[in-house]
Amino acid sequence: MFSLALNFDRFGPQKGLWGNRFNPIHTMLATGTDAVAGNQDEGGLRYADDMVSLPLQCGTQWDALGHIFYDDKMWNGYDARLVDSDGAQKNGIEKVKDKMVGRGVLLDVARQFGVDHFEDGTAITNEDLDVTAQAQGVEIRQGDFVIVRTGHMGHCLREDEWGGYAGGEAPGLAFETADWIHAKRIAAICTDTWGCEVRPNETDQASQPWHWVVIPMIGISMGEIFFLEELADDCAADGVFEFFFCAPPLPVTKAVGSPLNPIAVK
Amino acid sequence: MFSLALNFDRFGPQKGLWGNRFNPIHTMLATGTDAVAGNQDEGGLRYADDMVSLPLQCGTQWDALGHIFYDDKMWNGYDARLVDSDGAQKNGIEKVKDKMVGRGVLLDVARQFGVDHFEDGTAITNEDLDVTAQAQGVEIRQGDFVIVRTGHMGHCLREDEWGGYAGGEAPGLAFETADWIHAKRIAAICTDTWGCEVRPNETDQASQPWHWVVIPMIGISMGEIFFLEELADDCAADGVFEFFFCAPPLPVTKAVGSPLNPIAVK
Amino acid sequence: MFSLALNFDRFGPQKGLWGNRFNPIHTMLATGTDAVAGNQDEGGLRYADDMVSLPLQCGTQWDALGHIFYDDKMWNGYDARLVDSDGAQKNGIEKVKDKMVGRGVLLDVARQFGVDHFEDGTAITNEDLDVTAQAQGVEIRQGDFVIVRTGHMGHCLREDEWGGYAGGEAPGLAFETADWIHAKRIAAICTDTWGCEVRPNETDQASQPWHWVVIPMIGISMGEIFFLEELADDCAADGVFEFFFCAPPLPVTKAVGSPLNPIAVK
Amino acid sequence: MFSLALNFDRFGPQKGLWGNRFNPIHTMLATGTDAVAGNQDEGGLRYADDMVSLPLQCGTQWDALGHIFYDDKMWNGYDARLVDSDGAQKNGIEKVKDKMVGRGVLLDVARQFGVDHFEDGTAITNEDLDVTAQAQGVEIRQGDFVIVRTGHMGHCLREDEWGGYAGGEAPGLAFETADWIHAKRIAAICTDTWGCEVRPNETDQASQPWHWVVIPMIGISMGEIFFLEELADDCAADGVFEFFFCAPPLPVTKAVGSPLNPIAVK
Repeated sequence: MFSLALNFDRFGPQKGLWGNRFNPIHTMLATGTDAVAGNQDEGGLRYADDMVSLPLQCGTQWDALGHIFYDDKMWNGYDARLVDSDGAQKNGIEKVKDKMVGRGVLLDVARQFGVDHFEDGTAITNEDLDVTAQAQGVEIRQGDFVIVRTGHMGHCLREDEWGGYAGGEAPGLAFETADWIHAKRIAAICTDTWGCEVRPNETDQASQPWHWVVIPMIGISMGEIFFLEELADDCAADGVFEFFFCAPPLPVTKAVGSPLNPIAVK
Repeated sequence: MFSLALNFDRFGPQKGLWGNRFNPIHTMLATGTDAVAGNQDEGGLRYADDMVSLPLQCGTQWDALGHIFYDDKMWNGYDARLVDSDGAQKNGIEKVKDKMVGRGVLLDVARQFGVDHFEDGTAITNEDLDVTAQAQGVEIRQGDFVIVRTGHMGHCLREDEWGGYAGGEAPGLAFETADWIHAKRIAAICTDTWGCEVRPNETDQASQPWHWVVIPMIGISMGEIFFLEELADDCAADGVFEFFFCAPPLPVTKAVGSPLNPIAVK
Repeated sequence: MFSLALNFDRFGPQKGLWGNRFNPIHTMLATGTDAVAGNQDEGGLRYADDMVSLPLQCGTQWDALGHIFYDDKMWNGYDARLVDSDGAQKNGIEKVKDKMVGRGVLLDVARQFGVDHFEDGTAITNEDLDVTAQAQGVEIRQGDFVIVRTGHMGHCLREDEWGGYAGGEAPGLAFETADWIHAKRIAAICTDTWGCEVRPNETDQASQPWHWVVIPMIGISMGEIFFLEELADDCAADGVFEFFFCAPPLPVTKAVGSPLNPIAVK
Repeated sequence: MFSLALNFDRFGPQKGLWGNRFNPIHTMLATGTDAVAGNQDEGGLRYADDMVSLPLQCGTQWDALGHIFYDDKMWNGYDARLVDSDGAQKNGIEKVKDKMVGRGVLLDVARQFGVDHFEDGTAITNEDLDVTAQAQGVEIRQGDFVIVRTGHMGHCLREDEWGGYAGGEAPGLAFETADWIHAKRIAAICTDTWGCEVRPNETDQASQPWHWVVIPMIGISMGEIFFLEELADDCAADGVFEFFFCAPPLPVTKAVGSPLNPIAVK
C-alpha cells in the first residue's frame, strides 16, 4: 500500500511564484492544552478539533476539467464563463467523485534513463514513454492511470529545498505527448512535478500549451505533485509496474481542482 | 464503485450547534469570467483556480486518534497537551495516510429492522449488529472496516433539511458497542450519522462517552457523516454486503481529523 | 467617545440570506493554555496569537466605490471588468485610507418619529430627513458624514435575534434620497441597517436600485451595520447631534469593502 | 490627515520567520467580470464582494493585553489559561474598542540622529527618547500615544525588500525604556518596526523581554508595523510633532491583536 500524497502543511512547495497559491494553513479549533487546563470540562468531553485553508491545487492534486480553457471554452464545449466566483457550474471536480479508480501504471522514466532526476527543461518524449514501458515490461491500456516519474520531487525532498518546484522550471512531458495520451485513451496522466509539462515550455507563444490541449480538448484530468519515491523503489525491486490505483478527489462542489491522497495497492 | 462522501459545500450539515464548526467556504482565485474578459491574456494561459476553508470534521470524515482524550491522555498513553495550537505532535491523521484501505462490511441495520431511518435517540445494540450481520450473511473479521447504516443522513437528504443532524439528537451506536468493537478487532467503525453514538447519550454523566472509550482506549478511528444510500441499495439488491474499501485521509500534518471521499468497490 | 462598530464574531448578523457572506471566523495560532502547559518554553516567550477570516462586508463596514456597478461600468466610468478575482484595480477601498474623517451628523429619524424602530419596509423620505435635522437643530453641510438611525439594529440586539437583518426586509432610505444625498454633497451616508435602503425595495424592476445610483453614479461610499444606540442616547440627552467622526477603513489592497470601527468624538 | 497603515495584501512583510503568521489572503466572492458576463443578472444587481483571511498581527497592528504572558499570568493578574482556542476571555482587543484615541506624539529618533534608518540591533535608550523630544520641542504627557520612528520600515519600502523585517533583526527600544514608559504613564507605544524592541534582544535569557514587562506588567498596548514616513516628513517640515491620533482597533471579539488603520490629524 503506497500513499502518493505529500503531507499538506505550511512547508509545502508553494513559494508565491505562480498565481495566488499558498501552502495550507492548519489551525486548531480546540486543543489538548485547553482540555487539560480544564477549559472544556463544562461540556463534558475532552477533545481537539481543527480546520484548514488551502488552495485546492497547492499540493498533491487533481486538476478538474474546468481548470483550463481554450479560448472561451472548456471541455465538452461549455462556455468558460460558467466558471465564475460561485465556482464551476460545469466540469467541477465533484462530477468525478466515484471515477478516479482503476489500473495504475508507473513509468519511471528517470530510472530508465539512469538519472536521479531529470534536469529542469528536459522534455520527456513519446519515445521516452514507449521505451520505458517496454523496458519495464508493462503495457499501457485504455482507461489506465499513467503515472510518470521524473525524479523532480524526490530531488527537492532530498535537498530539503523546494526552490522553483511550484511554478518555476522543471522537467516534464513534451508537448507531443498530448498525442500519445489521446491515442492511448488513458484515464488520466500524473507526474511528480508541479505541472506535468516541461518548463520552460517548448514555445514562448503560449504558457502551458500542453494544458491547453490535454484538459479542454482531450478531456482528461492530470494529477500533479504526486509523491512517487516509495512506489518507484518498490516497482524497481519487484519489476512490477502496475497496481490498483484509487485516487478519490475531495468532492468540493463546483471546484476546479482537488487535493487528494492517491493510493497504489500492489 | 460507490463514493461514500457528501459533497463539501456551504449547504452541508453544520448549523453551529456544536463547537466552532462551519460548512466549507469555497472561493475562487481565478475564473473563466476573468479569462473571457481578457484579464489573463498577459499570462498566456486561461484558467480557473480555487481554494477552500473547512473544519476537518465538517463533512464526511475520519476522526484521528488525537481527536478525543480520556482525562489528560490520548491513545497510546500520550499526554493530551501534545495537541496544542501547532497541531497534534502525536496521533495526527497523517500517520495513517496509507492505512485506511481494506475489506469493508455494511451493516444496514435500518433496513434489517424495516425502517426508513431510526428515530433520534434509538440505541443500536450489540445484538442488533449481530442480528443484522447474520441476516445479511456477512461475517465480521479482524481488520474490517465496519459501516453501520441508521438511515439518518438519507432521511435528512430526502427531507432536504439537516435540522439537528450535526450536534443534535440522532440514532446511533449504544455505549455497549465499544465492547463489540474491541472484541471484533475491527480496523474502524463508520456510520451515516454525525457522531456514531446515540444522542442523547445514554448517560448524563459524560458527553459522548462511547468516544471516550473507542478513540483513546481502543485506539481506532471512526468515520462519520458517510453517505450510504446508494451503496445500501446496491447491497440489498445483490445480497452482497462486503466490498473493497479505500478511504485515504487527506494527510494534513498534525491534524486531528480529515475530510475524505471513501470509495467502496464491489 | 463612541465606537459605532458591532464586535466581529460568529454571533454576527450573517445568516446566509444573501450571497456567500458568513460571520467572522476567529481562530488562535497560539494560546495561553499552550503557554502554561510549557509548550512555548523552548522559544522563550509566552504569548497568544490569532487570525480571522471574514467577508469584508459581514459587519460594520464601508462599501468601496468598486462594490456596485451600473451596467458594465463603475464609478468614474471605469470598466467593471477591472474588478476580477485579483481584486479591484480601480476604486478599491485602500484609495480612501486617509479620507474617511470629518464632521459627523446623526439624524435619529426613529426617535424623531417617536418609535423604538421603524417596521420593515418603511421608507425614509427626503422630508423625513429634513424634518429630523431641523427638529434636532443640526445643519447638513457639504462634506459631512451623515448617519441615519432607523432603530433596526437596536431592535435586533434587544430581541437578541438577528432574523432577516442581513439581506432580509428592513426599514431604510427611500430611493428619492439619492437626490437629497447628491444635492447636499455629503461625504458618505451611513445607517444602522444592513443595506441603507428600504427593503423590500420600492420597485421590483431592480434589486437595490438606490445602490445603483449612489455608488456608481454619485460616487460616495455608504456605511452599513453601524451601531448607533449609545451615540443616539447621548445626542438625545445633550441635544448635540454633530461630532468629530473618524472612520478609517482597513486598507485591504484592491478590496471592494472594509470592516471598520467608526469613532464618534463628542 | 495621515494614515499610518501599510496596505494589507500578500506583499506584506510576513516571510514565515516567526510563528505561523502569513500575509493577508484577499479573495473575491463576486466580481465585475462575473457581472459583465451576465452571471448576476438573475439577482438584479451587479456587484463585487470579497473576503480576507489574515493573522491579526500580520501588518499594522495593536497588541491586545492578552497577547503576552508573564509566567502563567496576563495583565491584571488573570490566568493565562483564560486565553484558549476560543479566544481571550479577558483582555481581548474588543475591550478597548473606544479607547485608542487621544494626543499623539512622534519621536523621530532616526531623523534626530541624522540617519536614514538605524541599523539592526541598535537599541534606542531613554536618553535617546528624551533628547529627541527636547530637540523636537514636544512634551510627553500622561495618556499620550507615543510613536517612535526608527526608519526601519521606510528603509525596507525604499529597498522594496522586507528581508528579516518580520521576526528577524531590527533596531528598536532598549529594555530600559519599559521604565520610561511606566514613568511617563503614556497610553500606548508604537513604532515602525515589527516588534518595538531591539533585536537581537539585549539578553539571551529571554525572548522579547521588553514585551514581558510592557504588556503583562505595565498593561499598555503596543502598536507595531506603523507607516510613519509621510507623517515624519510633515512633522519635520512644520516642526510640529504632536497631533490628534485616532487608532480604533477592529473589535474582533476575544482577539489578542488587531489590524488597524491609525489616523493622525494635524
